[in-house]
Amino acid sequence: MAENIITLDYGSGGLKSSRLIAEKILPKLGNSALSQLGDAAVLPVTENIVFSTDSFVVTPRFFPGGDIGKLCVCGTVNDVCMAGGDPWYLSLSFILEEGLPMEELERIIDSIAKAAAEAGVQIVTGDTKVVEKGTGDGIYINTTGIGVLHTPGLSPGNIRPGDAVIVSGNIGDHGTAVMLARNSNLLQADVSSDCGSVKDPALALGTALGGDLRVMRDPTRGGLGTTLNEFIEGTRLGIELQEKDIPVSPSVNMVCELLGLDPLYCACEGRFIAVVAKERAEEALHILKGFEISKDARIIGSVTEDHPGKLVLRTPFGGGRIIGKLTGAQLPRIC
Amino acid sequence: MAENIITLDYGSGGLKSSRLIAEKILPKLGNSALSQLGDAAVLPVTENIVFSTDSFVVTPRFFPGGDIGKLCVCGTVNDVCMAGGDPWYLSLSFILEEGLPMEELERIIDSIAKAAAEAGVQIVTGDTKVVEKGTGDGIYINTTGIGVLHTPGLSPGNIRPGDAVIVSGNIGDHGTAVMLARNSNLLQADVSSDCGSVKDPALALGTALGGDLRVMRDPTRGGLGTTLNEFIEGTRLGIELQEKDIPVSPSVNMVCELLGLDPLYCACEGRFIAVVAKERAEEALHILKGFEISKDARIIGSVTEDHPGKLVLRTPFGGGRIIGKLTGAQLPRIC
Repeated sequence: MAENIITLDYGSGGLKSSRLIAEKILPKLGNSALSQLGDAAVLPVTENIVFSTDSFVVTPRFFPGGDIGKLCVCGTVNDVCMAGGDPWYLSLSFILEEGLPMEELERIIDSIAKAAAEAGVQIVTGDTKVVEKGTGDGIYINTTGIGVLHTPGLSPGNIRPGDAVIVSGNIGDHGTAVMLARNSNLLQADVSSDCGSVKDPALALGTALGGDLRVMRDPTRGGLGTTLNEFIEGTRLGIELQEKDIPVSPSVNMVCELLGLDPLYCACEGRFIAVVAKERAEEALHILKGFEISKDARIIGSVTEDHPGKLVLRTPFGGGRIIGKLTGAQLPRIC
Repeated sequence: MAENIITLDYGSGGLKSSRLIAEKILPKLGNSALSQLGDAAVLPVTENIVFSTDSFVVTPRFFPGGDIGKLCVCGTVNDVCMAGGDPWYLSLSFILEEGLPMEELERIIDSIAKAAAEAGVQIVTGDTKVVEKGTGDGIYINTTGIGVLHTPGLSPGNIRPGDAVIVSGNIGDHGTAVMLARNSNLLQADVSSDCGSVKDPALALGTALGGDLRVMRDPTRGGLGTTLNEFIEGTRLGIELQEKDIPVSPSVNMVCELLGLDPLYCACEGRFIAVVAKERAEEALHILKGFEISKDARIIGSVTEDHPGKLVLRTPFGGGRIIGKLTGAQLPRIC
């Protein structure tokens, strides 16, 4: 790593983030749980629990479809679910900037309370720090979640040739909504963040499919493109996506074209990817469609041995292009 | 609460902090675990676990005796211990400011690794965010800890008349060391932070004393004075401290006098208070003195029915003064 200072790219969820973790953090702190680099750790504590942490720095704090309060609950709940956990408990830690209007804090706490109730988790411990004006940005929030292990063994290592790749709904909404909220003078469009808890569909998939559910992951920073690359990098397997099957709303498509964004790299906060055995794909889809948050689920591709380690997007005209990992910060402070 | 904006006082650990929690957070998020307002939550998960979170915003990042890395491990380890837990796992979440020198981050990670190894905890999951220059202050860190319940039932509610109040070592070192590091041009003195893990002595006390150990608490923000007030407020019991028995190093005493600080309100980061049954006090002291981190432990006072809800400091000349809770931010960003 040539750089001597932290740049925004290190927080992007893309290549630089991976390198920071691989080169600077794992060599010093690595252990079998941390080295999995999942969104949460599965921990033996007599009964196995799932443990996940996330700090939220999204700007602006309020955006169509959500706010930092809803996001900080759903983000960690979803991470626990993706690791096969049934989330029970959250910790909540605020870093508040001097001068934050109390009214905003209250709205955010209301939002946290509502999201926690909806997701069926309890916030059981917390901490509040305040920093001087100019050393924060209103509010940063950390939540850390504990879940009871519900679906053991989920891992990219389970993926097999022929498996189906499912996404639980439209992609790109969160990233686009936040971008629009930052630039409301430039462009207006009817886009809302997908921010929400995917606990119910994730648990239902785990219960129904067991080992035929290979892995789940929520495509937050780095988006669908980066997350799918992480599944296959360094393996003998590739993934082929059908562009026409990837659900993107017309508004998101329009905004992305105007702003030069790619929906494949836009963060989602209420979507997840599930890789499932081919013969269970339709059943999985049926289960997902039974929940409001995942009613637009689609099978978008499959696992192949044809191009190991590569994610290939097939266009409706038969062409294909390789989709790499995000290399920098497409949108800093998206979550 | 008349104020409409967050001021530094809300992060002080004193009265304003209590009010913020009592008036703004508990009414909306309260549940039986959160409402205990201890430093960590004891949670039923088949085997009971202890769960605690803290965000660290100390400035400067490096100070005599420690740095934000050592502090973020020891702080959460100690909180888990104080709630009767044997800490096993930590999560680690960074909020980095664009422009932070990589070398500093590496030193901090080294320090985290060393402190975790010394405290016998594993960092099992993490997260890294980066914010733009001017919206942070180099680095903020959240750690969240999980421990296995080792000494059940610790609570201020167990305290009885006649119980002894023990402090595990000199108070005031951390707060004073950080203050000096901020103002090294004004004043120099030989003061090091007490920052360290109290896991070993805390577990040993729990094992030996069982129910005769009433409660433990580390006097961080707000210091000894505020913490002891929290034990007795609203109860029929008071605490009487003997000023001559409270261990304060000569350097800390000198610095506090020059700067107008009171050691009773200075944050400690490697000290704890234990309230124990009177007849076990000498045994507890003997156990504590067997560990380097608590070799200077002292019995500093006792629980009384004479002045309910009040903490009284007895001077060597027989006088007494009431010590209240800290009312504002004596030293912001001390941890």
